[in-house]
Amino acid sequence: MQAIAVEPGAGEPTLVERPRPEPAAGEALVRTLRVGVDGTDHEVIAGHHGDVPDDDTQLVLGHEAVGVVEDPNGTDLEEGQIVVPTVRRRPNGRDNEYFERGEPDMAPEGEYVERGIVGAHGFMAEYFTSPAEYLVPIPEEFAHLGFLVEPISISEKAIEHAVASRSAFDWDLESALVLGNGSLGLLTLGMFADVLDVERTYCLGRRDRPDPTIDIVEDLGATYIDSRETPVPEIPEVYESVDFVYEATGYAKHAFETVDALAPNGVGVLLGVPEPWEFEVDGGRLHREMVLHNKALLGTVNSHRGHFESAVDTLSQLPTWLTDDLVTGVYGLEEFQRAFETGDGVIKTAVEFSAL
Amino acid sequence: MQAIAVEPGAGEPTLVERPRPEPAAGEALVRTLRVGVDGTDHEVIAGHHGDVPDDDTQLVLGHEAVGVVEDPNGTDLEEGQIVVPTVRRRPNGRDNEYFERGEPDMAPEGEYVERGIVGAHGFMAEYFTSPAEYLVPIPEEFAHLGFLVEPISISEKAIEHAVASRSAFDWDLESALVLGNGSLGLLTLGMFADVLDVERTYCLGRRDRPDPTIDIVEDLGATYIDSRETPVPEIPEVYESVDFVYEATGYAKHAFETVDALAPNGVGVLLGVPEPWEFEVDGGRLHREMVLHNKALLGTVNSHRGHFESAVDTLSQLPTWLTDDLVTGVYGLEEFQRAFETGDGVIKTAVEFSAL
Repeated sequence: MQAIAVEPGAGEPTLVERPRPEPAAGEALVRTLRVGVDGTDHEVIAGHHGDVPDDDTQLVLGHEAVGVVEDPNGTDLEEGQIVVPTVRRRPNGRDNEYFERGEPDMAPEGEYVERGIVGAHGFMAEYFTSPAEYLVPIPEEFAHLGFLVEPISISEKAIEHAVASRSAFDWDLESALVLGNGSLGLLTLGMFADVLDVERTYCLGRRDRPDPTIDIVEDLGATYIDSRETPVPEIPEVYESVDFVYEATGYAKHAFETVDALAPNGVGVLLGVPEPWEFEVDGGRLHREMVLHNKALLGTVNSHRGHFESAVDTLSQLPTWLTDDLVTGVYGLEEFQRAFETGDGVIKTAVEFSAL
Repeated sequence: MQAIAVEPGAGEPTLVERPRPEPAAGEALVRTLRVGVDGTDHEVIAGHHGDVPDDDTQLVLGHEAVGVVEDPNGTDLEEGQIVVPTVRRRPNGRDNEYFERGEPDMAPEGEYVERGIVGAHGFMAEYFTSPAEYLVPIPEEFAHLGFLVEPISISEKAIEHAVASRSAFDWDLESALVLGNGSLGLLTLGMFADVLDVERTYCLGRRDRPDPTIDIVEDLGATYIDSRETPVPEIPEVYESVDFVYEATGYAKHAFETVDALAPNGVGVLLGVPEPWEFEVDGGRLHREMVLHNKALLGTVNSHRGHFESAVDTLSQLPTWLTDDLVTGVYGLEEFQRAFETGDGVIKTAVEFSAL
């Protein structure tokens, strides 16, 4: 079968021929429909993140997949069922407490592999196998958008943790700011505006108009903030301080500036994964401000099956125009390279391996 | 009646004569038993924090009080009942949503005054009045220690918020580190060790042995860490990374170093209130570490009536030797200055206004 793989540092993915996998006991065989491309894929391709499996020299890419069950292989799944796979797997089959209790997203480094990212092949292949416990059924009508379930699940977890952190008191989530106008930022902005009914929403970017991401921001009823005009610490003065900041830029200074952008009792969730970078902060002021106004900062990574299930619900609640505008390209294997191209007109892309 | 007051910047408290207050409708009159002294009092005395009421040139000190109801004045309280007052009050009687829902601790600056700290006279007087809703009954057997209820309530809130922030997943609190070996740090260490049954506890200080605070740390079964030998970022290597960090030093670098000291999925609560201070951090590494290991940092301040009620329970569960060793001096009005003296032998002091 055909697959899209990368050798660490090669700088670009290639089409390779690999044996079609055989499902082991407890695993189903899935025929791949579509696999999304995101920033993590680009980091893996560039050699900045991720690693090949122990027994291989290249890594099959892809962690945002949707497929159709080809062979349930004795599991509870049904042939023809549409499924989305989760990403983390037990490292070398070794079990640990996090996987045992269904929370692989909380496992520390070394206690997991990630399909398509680190230590395990991904889903960019005509077929893949997976233990049935990691395959989340979705309605057939969302099969074409199923590759958005994984990124949405990341925000389901982030929002769940943020809300939990504010659950010891009466918290009103009335305003939210998304840092970053990439596809994850825009999906999350859609969740704030249309699913969580947050009254006032903002999205920070650094793009000139006209721009399709700015159009989406404004069509969602949110306010676009150009970081070149209004840096994060000035947002409270120019707009307002916000109850929730969602950081999806990977720009390390945003983690600290988030404290300034938050309203009293607000929460910032950090999702970016920056490289080491030393810079000066007014640590005394930030510390004092967090204390005197009960502010919270949370890091979150990955997501578990429950978050995927919530993401399926969310996907059904997002307006159709949003996903239509967000997905700027779905490319077949004959032109898969186009799914990895970036540029101002590109928001979210996917590779199509087969049609339903 | 006699009271202990300070003029901003005067540098030391003085004994003053003030009229005995008359309880208004809904207020009770309380005869003061004891009032504790803490770091905030010293900051108010030094003029670094706090402010006098609008209509006065001096501030009656004291926010950690216990007293006996002298005149219930038609409230639900009973004459002779032992009570501890909470600290925050409506600013100029103006109501706001935070007070309405019983969460004055979540009110932002400007939406509250604090008795004995900012904008309202404290409890260091022979009598005080208070709306009955802010007077928390405690058992008579703890009357002599009732001035510890307010500081314990601060940690009740901090721990409640920290646990809430980890409630979206299965979190085991097995190790805790208290930064700071002042009286609040030691009380909190006692809560971790003896009330929450945290298996492994640590307390950071910068004192030489022999020292009474180190004795308390070790008598609690905790490990004393000298910050001069083991700075916070080295604690994971020398001891272990911990599930919970409680910062009670007000040293701004500790807020950032807390991220390094935390185990995966851990939470740090910040309680210190430092002055502005610019310094360099590896912001990229801290941001990345928070994300990849799901770490949380929360600021918390003050506490509400529910936390005071929990604190009364906690006080009854702390070992008697701990409170005996912690309270190093209780002084009558004739030698009240001794309650404000600091030094290596001093841990927690109080002024006694009257006996039960």
